[in-house]
Amino acid sequence: MSSQPPHAALLIPGPIEFDDEVLQSMSHYSESHVGAPFVNTFSEVLSMLRQLFQTTDAASQPIVLSGSGTLGWDQVAANLTEPGDEALVLHTGYFADSFADCFETYGVNATQLKAPIGDRPQLDEVEKALKEKKYKVLTVTHVDTSTGVLSELKALSELVHKVSPETLVVVDGVCSVGCEEIRFDDWGLDVVLTASQKAIGCPAGLSILMASGRAIEVFKARKTRPTSYFGSWKNWLPIMQNYEAKKPSYFATPSPQLIHALHTSLTQILSRPLEQRFSDHKAASQKIKKAIGEFGLKQLAAKPENQANGMTAIYLPESIAPPQVLPSLLKKGVIFAGGLHKEIATKYIRFGHMGVSVTDPKRDDIDRALKGLKEGLTEVGYKA
Amino acid sequence: MSSQPPHAALLIPGPIEFDDEVLQSMSHYSESHVGAPFVNTFSEVLSMLRQLFQTTDAASQPIVLSGSGTLGWDQVAANLTEPGDEALVLHTGYFADSFADCFETYGVNATQLKAPIGDRPQLDEVEKALKEKKYKVLTVTHVDTSTGVLSELKALSELVHKVSPETLVVVDGVCSVGCEEIRFDDWGLDVVLTASQKAIGCPAGLSILMASGRAIEVFKARKTRPTSYFGSWKNWLPIMQNYEAKKPSYFATPSPQLIHALHTSLTQILSRPLEQRFSDHKAASQKIKKAIGEFGLKQLAAKPENQANGMTAIYLPESIAPPQVLPSLLKKGVIFAGGLHKEIATKYIRFGHMGVSVTDPKRDDIDRALKGLKEGLTEVGYKA
Repeated sequence: MSSQPPHAALLIPGPIEFDDEVLQSMSHYSESHVGAPFVNTFSEVLSMLRQLFQTTDAASQPIVLSGSGTLGWDQVAANLTEPGDEALVLHTGYFADSFADCFETYGVNATQLKAPIGDRPQLDEVEKALKEKKYKVLTVTHVDTSTGVLSELKALSELVHKVSPETLVVVDGVCSVGCEEIRFDDWGLDVVLTASQKAIGCPAGLSILMASGRAIEVFKARKTRPTSYFGSWKNWLPIMQNYEAKKPSYFATPSPQLIHALHTSLTQILSRPLEQRFSDHKAASQKIKKAIGEFGLKQLAAKPENQANGMTAIYLPESIAPPQVLPSLLKKGVIFAGGLHKEIATKYIRFGHMGVSVTDPKRDDIDRALKGLKEGLTEVGYKA
Repeated sequence: MSSQPPHAALLIPGPIEFDDEVLQSMSHYSESHVGAPFVNTFSEVLSMLRQLFQTTDAASQPIVLSGSGTLGWDQVAANLTEPGDEALVLHTGYFADSFADCFETYGVNATQLKAPIGDRPQLDEVEKALKEKKYKVLTVTHVDTSTGVLSELKALSELVHKVSPETLVVVDGVCSVGCEEIRFDDWGLDVVLTASQKAIGCPAGLSILMASGRAIEVFKARKTRPTSYFGSWKNWLPIMQNYEAKKPSYFATPSPQLIHALHTSLTQILSRPLEQRFSDHKAASQKIKKAIGEFGLKQLAAKPENQANGMTAIYLPESIAPPQVLPSLLKKGVIFAGGLHKEIATKYIRFGHMGVSVTDPKRDDIDRALKGLKEGLTEVGYKA
């Protein structure tokens, strides 16, 4: 039995439901951030992140900071680009607008390549854009939490390396790391940034990032100093290297409790083959998408190849708005999220299916959610 | 009995020992960051912070972000100063060097007014500096964690308002909020920034800040956009105002578990008069300083008026280095910190006495630490 009190299943696209053992790790007694026990724990976390991101290149650098996924954007803009540089931002929803805004904050020119809602920029469009201007970085949201659109990292990265080999490939993996396949080395990625509270299954409060050796070289070759202090790799790289080497080190105080919880969640994730984890998420996603379709509902991501495996963004039937549906779902013990894409926010809801809700056979979150969704919509007048 | 397993008492100047109930709040089941239950909790946290900082001015603005105390410096440099502005940084140890470095990162010119180790800049020196140049902000480390030196906020703030009324008074209260008296309104402070893991008694992972109405006006009047994205008040002010008004709002995902733990610690702190809390810390500090003096040891902060009430930085006897003493203390169940001031790091140790170690009568942390310190030093050859 769970040690958590009864509560509605949190099935938004993050934060997700957390495992008991992970939550218990949050209560770890206080430790010194420079003492051997905590330094060892942090070291193991960094090693496990290498496995999660599937990188064996010693030049790759994992970074874990107190913050949220958004801080990963600041890290990219402040460390890898310099004022006046150009960034190509592939747009599949809300989060590209925000990442572009972040670049502009740092004096970097962001060009957005936009797809229609529910779609993603096509490779030939990306190729054309890359040939028109020299971009320091290209960014792609692996799964846009506002639309549930999945991007294709492998082919995209190959294209960038072929057409514009100096451009760094930066992936916003906030809603994908831990539930979508990511092969950091094999696919030639330069940065994948994420947060703790989605498919990694650890409470919010951590910005998690993997940088390639090539990205680190670009950072080291910059002509100006990093334009952030708290997010500066000049400050953090020696600390992360020391932590991984089990040497105490200090720049700013990390959160021992969150690092312990991350240690527990990564240990659980890596106790099974990653391929199994990804295929579990894919199977759950297909089951959900099939049920939704049979109930007469449409997804924002219309094409199957565009559909994320850890969440589903669902158009509501005409005349039914999220404020009608979400409270009805809550009464059935299920929490979904409203829309986030500003152009259509009131027209859809979002269903997150990541982590223990998918992988723990003792949980019935997904079935409860599908049943609740059908009943809830029926109650507010929808006929499938 | 404590629900925490037996462990060495953590008596470094942060993170400190945490109360059982606070640690249990860290294990709170997952909640939506935009759902009513969590929004209510966040709202109460912001209200309680107004009480902790002793501000009743509705124009004051509490801000709580995932991060560490250091992120507070970025918030100040990115939101209150613009490139080319001047900052006067009062230096009482390591943290002024770092705050100055942060300003330089943001293109702000930082002038440091340094005191000898263990002392603080005198008011006449501050007055002279303020008359020589127009400073946008003056910063003071209320308690410098590297030296245990306490600054005098009230007289300092009065001086600044008199001599240079447009200069904002910014206080680094990382090692003081919760254990040293701070009267935000009465003393005319513009920013007090802190972190969760010291005298506030909540695990690390939160940057906590109070800004005055005047500081907010200076922010709103800036000619350039804030130079941080994750730390931008343009992004966060509406969110904090919405959270306090119990309206759901989103910029970046906060950490519900840390906010719950902060809620618990603030509730505990505010269940007694603040004056009592401050006098408890003062009494414990005086007891510790007296015992250390009787044992023949000297403090970095030689003058009583310079001595912090939540920590003590202690010179080791000649010929005894921290690597000899700290492991010996650990064997006795007590964790102290080594030196941090770069010029004398190997010559002293630091003893933190904040929070439940001071206020919880069921704990014997302080007595155990004093006994351990005497025995430990004796074992490595010291004769008082």
